[in-house]
Amino acid sequence: MDFLKHTRYVPMNRRRRIYEGKAKILYEGPEPGTLIQHFKDDATAFNNKKHEIIDGKGVLNNRISEFVFNNLNAIGIPTHFIRRMNMREQLIREVEMIPLEVVVRNVAAGSIAKRLGLEEGTQLPRSIIEFYYKNDELDDPIVAEEHVTAFGWATPQELDDIMALAIRVNDFLSGLFLGVGIRLVDFKIECGRHFEGDMMRIVVADEISPDSCRLWDVDTNDKMDKDRFRKDLGGMLEAYQEVAKRLGILNENDRPAGTGPTLVK
Amino acid sequence: MDFLKHTRYVPMNRRRRIYEGKAKILYEGPEPGTLIQHFKDDATAFNNKKHEIIDGKGVLNNRISEFVFNNLNAIGIPTHFIRRMNMREQLIREVEMIPLEVVVRNVAAGSIAKRLGLEEGTQLPRSIIEFYYKNDELDDPIVAEEHVTAFGWATPQELDDIMALAIRVNDFLSGLFLGVGIRLVDFKIECGRHFEGDMMRIVVADEISPDSCRLWDVDTNDKMDKDRFRKDLGGMLEAYQEVAKRLGILNENDRPAGTGPTLVK
Repeated sequence: MDFLKHTRYVPMNRRRRIYEGKAKILYEGPEPGTLIQHFKDDATAFNNKKHEIIDGKGVLNNRISEFVFNNLNAIGIPTHFIRRMNMREQLIREVEMIPLEVVVRNVAAGSIAKRLGLEEGTQLPRSIIEFYYKNDELDDPIVAEEHVTAFGWATPQELDDIMALAIRVNDFLSGLFLGVGIRLVDFKIECGRHFEGDMMRIVVADEISPDSCRLWDVDTNDKMDKDRFRKDLGGMLEAYQEVAKRLGILNENDRPAGTGPTLVK
Repeated sequence: MDFLKHTRYVPMNRRRRIYEGKAKILYEGPEPGTLIQHFKDDATAFNNKKHEIIDGKGVLNNRISEFVFNNLNAIGIPTHFIRRMNMREQLIREVEMIPLEVVVRNVAAGSIAKRLGLEEGTQLPRSIIEFYYKNDELDDPIVAEEHVTAFGWATPQELDDIMALAIRVNDFLSGLFLGVGIRLVDFKIECGRHFEGDMMRIVVADEISPDSCRLWDVDTNDKMDKDRFRKDLGGMLEAYQEVAKRLGILNENDRPAGTGPTLVK
């Protein structure tokens, strides 16, 4: 992928829009097989029934997601991420999306607490992987592996790969956040098929940010994620900033230790 | 189990009631390790929100379930069933129930049609096994294998056994009903652990009847099952009678070919 290093910037108004979702837009990338992922400031919840603009959220999520994906790539977990391009955009590999939200839960919160009658905050007996079929009209229903394979959304082999990826991401993120005083309650990833010649590989796609995780302060249990918006707690942007700050990436040019060149003192 | 052949009948008022469910009562059996399963006439739906007494339903379900379980036993599918005792009661082995409803679906109907946006009557790409956590307070939520094993409702090995049983029951029932002009749309079983000395074996328990199956006439698609009650179609008892009639077991002393002694002509 050497060509990616010297790609010219294409003005935004000349780009072809491939897809617009609730929080992101995908544009055609500078080279075949690439896309540009643009982070909007839109906050949505309950399948878009609740919607607000939170100035600066897109910038923070772009930055946090860059940091997470760079580190996933670095430890050999394949992702679609190539590099961040600017405040709101990142260059990614084009993949064939698998229509599932893959949720990994460590602690009961949100729908699992309600569905199974668990008190929010209860440690689960072990990490649990759930699948939701991505379909707005159906409100993203929970499904089992049986449905995934029967309807061909993924093959059994692909599901195995997805679950192995999900567990690795959970291991890494649990450690990362614990190191900065945050409990990883749960998170959602989406996966895609990346084709290279005759080879296909399942990679982590979409984003990983406080929009797609439940993050609780280890000491206070304060929510530092999208639940601030879902539950009208206020202070959403400040919470996301705090996550970025703890990860050492709040400022544009912050580079946390080990992720790139550091200045000679 | 030779002793079971000469067990004396214990008057109903002298029996200890072990458990009463919506459609059945379990009494202590005549010997340790046995229970008596009593079929009531209560029809319930939507987690008991709808309730009616349908005179004679219990008798029919006792008879149909006897017939199915006898035949499952005969082809080597282990069940809790020992023998029918009278119009409303059967002798069963005591098992430790697994708190799951195991649903096998061949055709989209009911909750899967709604959940996944499928038209009722659509043939599924393959038979799909679903699990619902038996809990009235939670309205029996659908769960995935992940939840079953994480919460210890069944071990992975037990789940494998349950799924293998469910597939075998589906194969047998599909054939049985097709032979009498009925399409097996879906059905529910419950399983239990049967202990014999140091050995434990997963067996099919509960009942299999038009209360727990969706049965459609092959030619007319008429419903011959509990949906007649759920959907206020009327003629529930007549439909159950028709199922029994087609199976050749409507009259108390009917013995379908191959299941017992036939009269010498």
